[in-house]
Amino acid sequence: MNQIVSDTLAAPAISAASRLAPILEARSVAIVGASADPQKVSGRPLAYMLARGFKGKLFPVNPAHNIVQGLKSYPSLASIGEPVDLAIIGTPAAQVEEIVREGIEAGIRGFVIFSSGFSELDEAGAELQRRLTALADTHGVSILGPNCLGAVNSQTGLAATFTTALEENTFLYGGFAFVSQSGALGAYWMDICLRSGLGFSKWITTGNECDVDAAAAIDYLADDPDTKVIGVYIEDIRHGHAFRLALMKAAAKGKPVIAIKSGRSAAGVAAAASHTGALAGDDALYDACLTQYGALRVDSLTRMIDIARLYLYGAVPAGNRLAVMSVSGGAGVMIADEAEEWGLTLPPLSAETAMKLRQCLPSFVHPANPLDLTGNVVQNSRHISLALEAVASEPGTDGIVLFVGLMHSIAAAFTDALATVRKKTSKPIVVVWIGAKEETVSVLEQARICVFRDIPPAIAALGQSVQLSALRQKALGQLSLSVGRQATVSPAQTAVAWSEWDSKQALRKAGITSIPEGLLLPLEAAEANPPTPASWPTVAKLQSDTLLHKSDVGGVILNIKDAEGLKSAVAQLCEVAREHGIVAQGALVEPMLPYDHELLVGLRRDTRFGESLTLGRGGVNVELEADVATALLPLSEQHVKDLLRSLRGARRFEGFRGCKPLNFDVAAKAIVELYNVFSAHPEFAEIEINPLVVSEERAWILDAIVRRFE
Amino acid sequence: MNQIVSDTLAAPAISAASRLAPILEARSVAIVGASADPQKVSGRPLAYMLARGFKGKLFPVNPAHNIVQGLKSYPSLASIGEPVDLAIIGTPAAQVEEIVREGIEAGIRGFVIFSSGFSELDEAGAELQRRLTALADTHGVSILGPNCLGAVNSQTGLAATFTTALEENTFLYGGFAFVSQSGALGAYWMDICLRSGLGFSKWITTGNECDVDAAAAIDYLADDPDTKVIGVYIEDIRHGHAFRLALMKAAAKGKPVIAIKSGRSAAGVAAAASHTGALAGDDALYDACLTQYGALRVDSLTRMIDIARLYLYGAVPAGNRLAVMSVSGGAGVMIADEAEEWGLTLPPLSAETAMKLRQCLPSFVHPANPLDLTGNVVQNSRHISLALEAVASEPGTDGIVLFVGLMHSIAAAFTDALATVRKKTSKPIVVVWIGAKEETVSVLEQARICVFRDIPPAIAALGQSVQLSALRQKALGQLSLSVGRQATVSPAQTAVAWSEWDSKQALRKAGITSIPEGLLLPLEAAEANPPTPASWPTVAKLQSDTLLHKSDVGGVILNIKDAEGLKSAVAQLCEVAREHGIVAQGALVEPMLPYDHELLVGLRRDTRFGESLTLGRGGVNVELEADVATALLPLSEQHVKDLLRSLRGARRFEGFRGCKPLNFDVAAKAIVELYNVFSAHPEFAEIEINPLVVSEERAWILDAIVRRFE
Repeated sequence: MNQIVSDTLAAPAISAASRLAPILEARSVAIVGASADPQKVSGRPLAYMLARGFKGKLFPVNPAHNIVQGLKSYPSLASIGEPVDLAIIGTPAAQVEEIVREGIEAGIRGFVIFSSGFSELDEAGAELQRRLTALADTHGVSILGPNCLGAVNSQTGLAATFTTALEENTFLYGGFAFVSQSGALGAYWMDICLRSGLGFSKWITTGNECDVDAAAAIDYLADDPDTKVIGVYIEDIRHGHAFRLALMKAAAKGKPVIAIKSGRSAAGVAAAASHTGALAGDDALYDACLTQYGALRVDSLTRMIDIARLYLYGAVPAGNRLAVMSVSGGAGVMIADEAEEWGLTLPPLSAETAMKLRQCLPSFVHPANPLDLTGNVVQNSRHISLALEAVASEPGTDGIVLFVGLMHSIAAAFTDALATVRKKTSKPIVVVWIGAKEETVSVLEQARICVFRDIPPAIAALGQSVQLSALRQKALGQLSLSVGRQATVSPAQTAVAWSEWDSKQALRKAGITSIPEGLLLPLEAAEANPPTPASWPTVAKLQSDTLLHKSDVGGVILNIKDAEGLKSAVAQLCEVAREHGIVAQGALVEPMLPYDHELLVGLRRDTRFGESLTLGRGGVNVELEADVATALLPLSEQHVKDLLRSLRGARRFEGFRGCKPLNFDVAAKAIVELYNVFSAHPEFAEIEINPLVVSEERAWILDAIVRRFE
Repeated sequence: MNQIVSDTLAAPAISAASRLAPILEARSVAIVGASADPQKVSGRPLAYMLARGFKGKLFPVNPAHNIVQGLKSYPSLASIGEPVDLAIIGTPAAQVEEIVREGIEAGIRGFVIFSSGFSELDEAGAELQRRLTALADTHGVSILGPNCLGAVNSQTGLAATFTTALEENTFLYGGFAFVSQSGALGAYWMDICLRSGLGFSKWITTGNECDVDAAAAIDYLADDPDTKVIGVYIEDIRHGHAFRLALMKAAAKGKPVIAIKSGRSAAGVAAAASHTGALAGDDALYDACLTQYGALRVDSLTRMIDIARLYLYGAVPAGNRLAVMSVSGGAGVMIADEAEEWGLTLPPLSAETAMKLRQCLPSFVHPANPLDLTGNVVQNSRHISLALEAVASEPGTDGIVLFVGLMHSIAAAFTDALATVRKKTSKPIVVVWIGAKEETVSVLEQARICVFRDIPPAIAALGQSVQLSALRQKALGQLSLSVGRQATVSPAQTAVAWSEWDSKQALRKAGITSIPEGLLLPLEAAEANPPTPASWPTVAKLQSDTLLHKSDVGGVILNIKDAEGLKSAVAQLCEVAREHGIVAQGALVEPMLPYDHELLVGLRRDTRFGESLTLGRGGVNVELEADVATALLPLSEQHVKDLLRSLRGARRFEGFRGCKPLNFDVAAKAIVELYNVFSAHPEFAEIEINPLVVSEERAWILDAIVRRFE
């Protein structure tokens, strides 16, 4: 069990969910500066809502006109004279604050601000934006934007947006929702969802996030009964804690979250920095945050929407075992190849299923998985349907992939068989149909069967959907844990390193028990006549605040067997210090300790995500082939073990060729002790242990660097 | 330089190229069993050729009719009475041999056999097929199939096929050609190429390959002036040597080869085995073969066709440096992320280009790479065109990616700017346009600009096309080498292992110089009074034919310092042998040798591909985290070094934290010596050296297992 007691699960003063309600559930909307021209940016929201039958009242606000797009126009928000839920503002930046103030006066609780010229532009804009934040905070109103594309509720026809994605598409309701920090990506997503017939429930672009941020939007969608699957596009999370809470809530509500986080590459980070004006965060922490709280990270809208469709069509396998049927042996083999890439298996069919297949198919069809129906068999539509039914009743698999190519003349036989079997089984069925005609795809989608047009995207989406379910399951197992405390570090804080000796002293004082007893010998005195350590052999290590990689300069002497050896070792370290101009604190003499495994344990505080833990294989070669895994704190002891098992080289922890297996209990206990101490000492900016050595009986910290905030 | 002199570059008796000519260049074609019904399998080839204006003579052969599909029908091949180049045969298997004989009598040189019921069915079928092979060999005629979908020449309208891919598509000429061991995959490929407007030159499905195989088809296409890019789908190569020659020829002729080899996963191999009836080969050898001879391996038809299109449109960057322009900052970041995945870089723009961009774009656009044009800029079509021209003239990049999303109302501004710049620059331009309309894509493709509908497929295709060019370049650098000798091993041959001592003796006798001087002590005698080795410290290793992992059972004792130590070591080994019931040959005593790096060197003979070399990081932990690379022999010394540098952990070869760098010359020389000896001794089935240790001065074989053919 986890030993951390969190103090931070208290809800914020205004619940995040209610922040979006005044916007997305608005029944009366004022559009400030609404243009009479429905093509113009300032005319589109009104035009969209009129054309798509918004179920509420619309109030154009434009002092230059009496009538705008057929509606009575008002000179100001104040002059409307009846309650308004939401104001949409697209005026020049300089006018925005005044309009929001006026709206608040008039009792409006929600604002969507399209206007640019705020923090994305310059410091003056950032100041304008801070004043909007202050207004939202002071008056408890909700502001989406500025510099955003707005929000849409497809159920009520609320189109508080000027996105061109609505130019040619009509609304179509679906269980998918999207939160985007990029307006453009939001537009592309909406266009794909509407054109492909998938539809959506809610759509929220957050822009500069002066008030409502991505976390608040996810939180809202987690509660939204119309939303079944949540898509997210993020570039930069400013409040990691709220984001974690939101992800956790979505997981608890059973809603899969599929996220794109851009800026994972060095070039991408640089580009993101110039694009958003915010420093891009450490990608490993974003990765850890998403994964740990049950969200799946993908690299494209196409993939996100493919996976969402599987969920919405009930086509996500409960496990990783697929039955594959194919009209081409080669395609069956290619599916098996791709399946392995994504952690999916094709188990052999049960004897019973094989028997059924033998009964219903010609003798030359081998009842295997993948099942090659052959070009001949599929000429007989009864064969297709019987084989599908037999495979659907196979208990040892979690989903069916049927591969078809061309075969337009007998497409109906396939679609009929699929639609029939779809009704008889709850088992997910996915079709890969190369060269399928639009009408065939359309018939299958009406039967809620997902169709892909080539093998790799289908198998990738299936594999990732299974991964996503597993991530959510794992996240739910952690529900009893808190999501950690809010980050308390500011980007301005800097940290300085202690020497190994000082680091270990500090850790020992803080309660860490796994530090070997050592002696710090002042160099000059010890060179003449070093004191005798408690046991032999020993190791002697040069100590200095400025020397971080001791072994690089010959500052570590191992396996010293006696007093003579120690004397010459100390002399050698003196020489090293002189040679490299190192101001040395002394020589640390510690016993040589036997061990089975070397680990790296890193703990740090991040301005966005607070405390994190990095585990890896330890030793001097750790930088040669990094093998590390990162998670945000707090973690359970079980999660620590899982993290160790997730390392690429984890097989060696099972014991190999005379090397003993890793004692996971001992390792996890030492690691949990370390991060509990780290959590309790906010003055520690970072702890790096390399190595933490682990034997069957216990763990020892052989080397440590602690960085403290100045 | 390579030290192997190959004896096998002599061309086969009938050149592979001429094998396809009688089929693909046929000007007179007889269709045996041609049906009057153009829908039927037996009616389709004639119907297709009639409808698509085959430029030659057609002779239906069907004794039941006088007229078939409007043409005079003949009762037999013999009765045609004028020269015929090609006979298409789709009769039951039992009649095929007789018809081929009749055709040969009548002077026909090419045969396409659709009929199934040969080696894919049973042993009787295999015997029928062997007789066809004998006919082809004896009479020097060419046979495609049996059990194939035939072949097409889109230039002459020759459709010696019944594929349904021609049901609805008309011929369209293009520079792409396809060779497929699967008829179905061939059909899908053709359908995609014709529907997408890419077209193709030649299309060859090889079926059971009784005579013409995939290698012969590639060889033919390498010479074919209509073919610029070659696609290949293979499941099983029976003649690795011919395949390597064909790939090498394609590389030499400057034609990229893009290959799918299915059956790379364990499940895929099992499925392939049941599908083709042939044992699937070792996937690493296929991989090595393709890569080494300049072919790129991909996992889907979609990817293959994407990359081919880049080549055919002149859109393959000469190097890995991209300039990215985007209408959305977020999309630019996502492109940068994907680029890194595929080894592509986004270098900063030159000062000159930045200046040009500053001059032509508003001040708030930051002239960076990726370049965020922003939604505002692109409202001005002159901006798009000026920015594109500025970026196209940037000398420091090899290609341009332009990202657009939706923006239907200003699509013409983009397509105009692109078409104009396309004419002014030879620099590849690729467009990613999310939500593009069909007509927009069509306009751009007419201007020979590739359009992708999402980021990952575009960047993957670009990255892989650059990889393919690099592979071809590297393969060409090896043109002076032979492609090795034909495999001489039969699948029936088995091999047995020698003990380390016997293996080393055999290697020494064969001329290997890097084996430490050792003594083999008979255990019982030595236990009492072991002789003195030449130097201390030594290592003592238990020797036995049956003991392959000595250290697992405590059969290796290191660091023996003196006679006393050796005596007790030998006693210990005796004990180990007794305990594990090992019939021991003795104890091998060798000097302990200092070294910097441990390598694994494996040499084996494969029934398909002949001799291959596997290099990897060595030592006892090699199985924990395999880090190996495989190549077919012969190789140059330079290629051996490249192979070492391709290892995941190759960074440690550069020297790290006190560890010396690997002396690549010493390592490569020792490896080349080993494989030259292996090549010269066909009685060695396999040599495994682990480790080969390398110091600055020289290399030593510390442990070796040689397997010999019985």
